[in-house]
Amino acid sequence: MSLIDEIDHLKEVIDDELNRIFVNKTGYQEKIFQAMKYSLFTGGKRIRPILLLKSCEMISGSYDEAIPFALALEMIHTYSLIHDDLPSMDDDDFRRGKPTNHKIFGEAIAILSGDGLLNLAYEIMIENTILFSKNREDYYKFLLASKEISKASGIDGMIGGQVVDILSDSESIDSLELEFMYRCKTAALIEAAVVSGGIIGGANEIEIDNLRKYGRCIGLGYQIRDDILDIDEDRAINKTTYLSFNSLETAKEKVEYLSKEAKLSLEIFKDNNITFLEEIAYYLINRNK
Amino acid sequence: MSLIDEIDHLKEVIDDELNRIFVNKTGYQEKIFQAMKYSLFTGGKRIRPILLLKSCEMISGSYDEAIPFALALEMIHTYSLIHDDLPSMDDDDFRRGKPTNHKIFGEAIAILSGDGLLNLAYEIMIENTILFSKNREDYYKFLLASKEISKASGIDGMIGGQVVDILSDSESIDSLELEFMYRCKTAALIEAAVVSGGIIGGANEIEIDNLRKYGRCIGLGYQIRDDILDIDEDRAINKTTYLSFNSLETAKEKVEYLSKEAKLSLEIFKDNNITFLEEIAYYLINRNK
Repeated sequence: MSLIDEIDHLKEVIDDELNRIFVNKTGYQEKIFQAMKYSLFTGGKRIRPILLLKSCEMISGSYDEAIPFALALEMIHTYSLIHDDLPSMDDDDFRRGKPTNHKIFGEAIAILSGDGLLNLAYEIMIENTILFSKNREDYYKFLLASKEISKASGIDGMIGGQVVDILSDSESIDSLELEFMYRCKTAALIEAAVVSGGIIGGANEIEIDNLRKYGRCIGLGYQIRDDILDIDEDRAINKTTYLSFNSLETAKEKVEYLSKEAKLSLEIFKDNNITFLEEIAYYLINRNK
Repeated sequence: MSLIDEIDHLKEVIDDELNRIFVNKTGYQEKIFQAMKYSLFTGGKRIRPILLLKSCEMISGSYDEAIPFALALEMIHTYSLIHDDLPSMDDDDFRRGKPTNHKIFGEAIAILSGDGLLNLAYEIMIENTILFSKNREDYYKFLLASKEISKASGIDGMIGGQVVDILSDSESIDSLELEFMYRCKTAALIEAAVVSGGIIGGANEIEIDNLRKYGRCIGLGYQIRDDILDIDEDRAINKTTYLSFNSLETAKEKVEYLSKEAKLSLEIFKDNNITFLEEIAYYLINRNK
C-alpha cells in the first residue's frame, strides 16, 4: 500500500470509531453532541491518531489496543482548535473552509463542546485502561501512555504553548520563547502520539527515547515547514515565526536536518516494519501545502 | 472536634496541598499559573474534596491516598466556575465578592486556565494512580475512582447539565428537564466525591450503592436549599428552579425528606465513624446561607 492509501485507510478506521461514540447519543444536552461531532468531522488530517496507531503497530505488530488512545488524542487536538478559534482567542470564523464551531453553535456551546471533548478523551482512556488490563503490567502500560498524553496536553505542554502564543500577540518574544512555544503548542502532542503508541505496543526505555526523538523532530519540522509555506504563499504575517529569526535558507536547512534526524531515530527499529513511519516523517516535514 | 472545626481543618489541609502544586512553578506561561491559582483561592468552601476525604476515611480509617483525587475534584469544580462566569455563559463580574477570572486576566487566559485546571486534574489522578499502586487491586481501585469522577464531570454529567442550563435561558424547560439539570450540574460531582472517596477507601459494592444514594440526596438537597434561599433573600429570579413547579412548603418537605434519606443511607456503616458524614449532610441541606 502506498503512504497515501494507507493514510486514507487509517483515516477511515479513525472516522468510523469516532462516529461510533455518538451513535444513539441523545438527551436534553444533545446540542453538545452535535457541536462536538461537527468539529470532529471538519476535515482533520488525523495525523496524531495515525502516528499513535502506527507507532504501536511498528513495535507490536498490531494497533488494536491503541485505538481508544488515538481517538482520545484526536479529541484533545479538536478541543484545542475549538477553543483557539474563539473570538477572545484567535477569532477565526473559518477553519478548513468551514465555519468554526462558535459560528454555528454560539460561543457558550463552543466552549462547552471543547470542555466536553477534553473530558471525554480522559473518560475513554480511563475506561479502556480498566477494560483492557489483565495484569499489573497492562495497567502500568496504559497509565503511562495516558500520562504521556496528559502531560503533553496540559499547562507544561499544549495549553502552556497556547498561553505564550496569546501573550505574544501583545508583546514581542525572542527566539528561545518561540522555541518553547513551538515545542509546547505543536510538537508536544505529536511527540506524545508517537511515544504513547510505542508504550502501548510495549516499547522498552531505549525504544521510547528514540520514538521521542523521532516525534520531536517531526513535530518541530512540521511547524517550521508551516512557517515556510506561509512565506511561500505570501500570507499576511504579523506573528513571530521561525523566519523572524532565521533566513528562508536556514529554515529549509533546519527542516532538512530534522527530517534526517527523524529517520536516524528509527534505525534501532530496523528489524521491524519502519516504512510507514519513515515515509510519513518525510511527507509531514517536506509537504507543499 | 465540632463539625465546623473539622471542616476548617480539612480546608487547611486541602489549601496547603493545592498551594504546593504551584510552588516554584515558573516559565514563559506563568500567567496561567497565576490565573489558575487565583480562582483556586477565592474562598471556595471545599465541600467536594472534604466529602471525598471523609468518605474515604469513614471506610478505611485514613484519607491519605485520597488527597490527590480530592485536589483533582476541586480543580474540576473550579474550572467549571471559571467557564460558567465567562461573558458568553453567565457573564458574571464577581464570584464570592471577588472579580471573576476573566475580569482580572482577560477572557483568553480565563478559558485557558479553565482548560488547564481540567487537564491538571487528570494529570494528577493518572500520576498518583501510577505512584500509589502496588498491585492489580490498587490500580483497579484508583482507576474506578477516576472513572467515577470523569463520568460525573463530562457530557453526561456536569457539562451536560451546564448545556441544559445555558439552553434554558432561551427556552422554557419542564420539571423533568430541570431534574436532569440538577442531577447533572450539581448532584453529579457531589455524588462522585462521596463515591470515589469510598472506592479509594476500599468500599464494597453494597457500600458504594449506599454512598451513592447518600451523595445524590445531599447533592439534590443542596440545590433545592439554594432555590429556597434565593426566594427567602428575594433575589431577582428569571430562571426556572424547583420552585417554578413546587410550592415553598413542598420544597421544604423535599429537603427534609432528602436529609432523612441521606442519614438512612449511612446506617449500614454504623460500625464505622459516621458522625462527620451525618452532620455535614444535615448542615449542607439545612444551611441558611
